[in-house]
Amino acid sequence: MTTHDPRRLAWAYLSRVAQGPHRVLRDFAAEAGPEGAADAVSRGALGERLQVRSHIDTAQADLDLVASQGGRLITPDDDEWPMWRLLAFDGAGMPVGNDQCAPLALWVLGAVSVAELTERAVSIVGTRAATSYGEHVTAEIAGDLAIDGWTILSGAAFGIDAAAHRAALGVGGSTVAVLACGIDRAYPSGHSRLLHRIAQTGAVISEYAPGTTPAKHRFLARNRLVAGLGSAVVIVEAGWRSGARNTAGWARKLGRPVLAVPGPVTSAASKGCHRMIREGEACLVADAHDVVAEAGMAGETDEGRPSMFREIDALSESALLVYEALPASGTLSPRELSDVSSLPLATVRSVLPLLELDGFVASDETGWSRVART
Amino acid sequence: MTTHDPRRLAWAYLSRVAQGPHRVLRDFAAEAGPEGAADAVSRGALGERLQVRSHIDTAQADLDLVASQGGRLITPDDDEWPMWRLLAFDGAGMPVGNDQCAPLALWVLGAVSVAELTERAVSIVGTRAATSYGEHVTAEIAGDLAIDGWTILSGAAFGIDAAAHRAALGVGGSTVAVLACGIDRAYPSGHSRLLHRIAQTGAVISEYAPGTTPAKHRFLARNRLVAGLGSAVVIVEAGWRSGARNTAGWARKLGRPVLAVPGPVTSAASKGCHRMIREGEACLVADAHDVVAEAGMAGETDEGRPSMFREIDALSESALLVYEALPASGTLSPRELSDVSSLPLATVRSVLPLLELDGFVASDETGWSRVART
Repeated sequence: MTTHDPRRLAWAYLSRVAQGPHRVLRDFAAEAGPEGAADAVSRGALGERLQVRSHIDTAQADLDLVASQGGRLITPDDDEWPMWRLLAFDGAGMPVGNDQCAPLALWVLGAVSVAELTERAVSIVGTRAATSYGEHVTAEIAGDLAIDGWTILSGAAFGIDAAAHRAALGVGGSTVAVLACGIDRAYPSGHSRLLHRIAQTGAVISEYAPGTTPAKHRFLARNRLVAGLGSAVVIVEAGWRSGARNTAGWARKLGRPVLAVPGPVTSAASKGCHRMIREGEACLVADAHDVVAEAGMAGETDEGRPSMFREIDALSESALLVYEALPASGTLSPRELSDVSSLPLATVRSVLPLLELDGFVASDETGWSRVART
Repeated sequence: MTTHDPRRLAWAYLSRVAQGPHRVLRDFAAEAGPEGAADAVSRGALGERLQVRSHIDTAQADLDLVASQGGRLITPDDDEWPMWRLLAFDGAGMPVGNDQCAPLALWVLGAVSVAELTERAVSIVGTRAATSYGEHVTAEIAGDLAIDGWTILSGAAFGIDAAAHRAALGVGGSTVAVLACGIDRAYPSGHSRLLHRIAQTGAVISEYAPGTTPAKHRFLARNRLVAGLGSAVVIVEAGWRSGARNTAGWARKLGRPVLAVPGPVTSAASKGCHRMIREGEACLVADAHDVVAEAGMAGETDEGRPSMFREIDALSESALLVYEALPASGTLSPRELSDVSSLPLATVRSVLPLLELDGFVASDETGWSRVART
C-alpha cells in the first residue's frame, strides 16, 4: 500500500463516484479543486445521485490496484493531461467553449505520457463484423499513419478496431485503446493479449474506475473520448446502423473531421460509410494520405497545435484574467497566478498551456511570463 | 433515291460541313434558317474553315444512305428534337442561357422518337477497363433504372458503357448509344451486334454525318451529348485519368448532377470515382434508388419537365417577343408568329415549347394561344 497524494485520492474518489462523464462535478472540481468537490459530493451539494454513491470510497484501493498493474490515474493537475485534445473545435479549427467533453480523470496503463501519445493521433473505428476487405484496408491505412508518426486510437473491439491497433503495433507505431470498462478488465476478453501489447508501447485508458464492467451507455460515452482524443475519426466499415456512427456523431460535435472509407456497394459492411459520405456526414478517404490531408488541418496550426487565441480580444474571461495577472516582466507560479487572479488553481493550470500555445505566455523553470506582443 | 425536303437537305449539308458542334453556325441557322445558313457558309460569311469545306455537298447521298439503313436526320424543326434536353441548367434546376451545347442536327438509327426516349434518361458511363465488380454494379443500377422506365444513355464503349446498354436491353428497357462517328459505322466494331440491338428498341445517335470516323476530339464532343441528354451522369468505374471525367465535366457545365459509384479503395478502376466524390465533384450513389433521388430533382418540376420561366419578367427576349406576339384570344401558327414577332421561324419553334412547359402558352390543332396568367 502506497501513500497517495490527498489531491489524487480525491480525484480517484470522484472518478469512482461519478461513474463516467459528469460535467457538473467536473466543473465544480475545476473551480473548488478535487477535495472541495469530494466534500460537496458527500454533503449532497451536487445532487442526490452522487450523494447516494458518496460512501463508496475505494480511492486508496483503486490507486493501489492500478499501480500494482503498472498503471496510474491522470488528472487535469498532471502535465500529461491531454487537455487540448479534449477541447471542442469550430469549423475553422478554433476551440469553442472549453473542455466540454473532458472526463474528470483518466485511468491509464502504459508508460508513455498520454499528452505525448495523443499529440498527433487519429481514431480509426468500424464494425465488429469486418470483412477481409475492411481489415485489409484498415491495416494499410493504420500502418501507414503509424509509420508516419500518428498514434492510432481505437476501442479495442473485434473487427476494424483490432485491425487498427494491430497494424500500428505491427509497424512499431503507437496505439491507444480507450475502454468502456475499468483498465484492469480485458474487454473483450479475447483481446487480453492485444490489450497487454498495446499498454507496453502505447496506452490503455478509461475514465471508469477499476472493476467497472462494460455497459451500453459506457460504450457510447467511451466513443466520445475516442473521437475527442484524435484529430479526426476514420470509419472503415460500418453497417447501416453502427456504433461507429455514434463515434462519428461525437466527432462532429467536437469539430473533428469524420472520414469514411468506401467499399463495394455490394457489401453490407460498407453501407454505413456510403450513407455518411452521401449525406455529407463524412468525407471520403481512400488512403492514409487522404486522412492526413484532413486530420492535419483540423484544429491545428502549422506547428501541429491548436491556435486558440489570435487576439487578446478573443481570449476567454479566465484566460484574460490569467494573462492580465502576469507582470509585464518577471515570472509567477501557477499558484501565485491563482492568488493574483482569484481564479482556482485548476483553472489557471488549464488556461496557461492554451495561452502558451498561441504565444501569449511562456514558461521556464522559474515560472510563467508574458510574451511581448508585436 | 428519295426526294428530300430542301430544308432537311440544308440541315444535312450543314451537319456535314460543320463536322461536329459549331455554335456560330447553329445560332446562324436558328436565325436565318438552314438554307440561309448554307448559303452563308458557301459565301464564306461564317468563316474560312467552313468555306473550305463548303463544296462537300453530300446531303442527298447522306440522307439516302441513312434512310436505307432505317435511319433519319432530326433537326430543331422536328417534334422529336430533344430540345429541352439540350439546355443547360443552373444549380436550382432552372435553365440558363439556352441550348448552348445543342448540336446542329442528329443522325438517328431507331424507330422511337428521340424526345420521347430522352424524356426520362440517365447517362451511365465509365472505364473501358471495367472490373467484374464494375460490370456487376452497372448491370444492377442500369437494370433497375430501366425497369423503372428510365432510358439508359451511354457511349457504346467496351466495359461500363456496354454493361449499361446490355442491362437495359436485358430487362426490355430503353437505351440510347451516342457515337463519336457516323451512325453507319459500328464503333467499336466488336459492338456491331450490340449497336444493332440498341437501334431496334432505342436509338443510336450521332451529330456526325455518315462515314465520319471516330477521333479523339469527337469523343470529347460526344461526351457533351451523353451528359446533356440525361438528367444525371452516373460514373461507375473510372481510373485516375479517365474519359468519364470529361463527361462529368460536361455534366457540371450543363447543370446535371454527377453521380459516382464507389468501390474498393484497393481497385485502380475506382480511383477516379473516389477522387471525384472526395473533391466534391460527384455525389456518391450506391444503387438505382440513390440515382433517382438525384436525377429526379435535376432540372425538373413535379411534372418531370423543366420549369424555365416562373415569371414573365424572367423570359428571354425571344420568348417575350413570341409571347407578346400572341393575341389575347385566338391562335396563331408558328409561321404567323414569326411574321408578327419578326423572329426567325426556327427561333419561334424553339421558344414555343418552353413557353408551353411553364404554362404561358398552349397549343391545339388550330395553333398557339396565350394561357391566362393568374
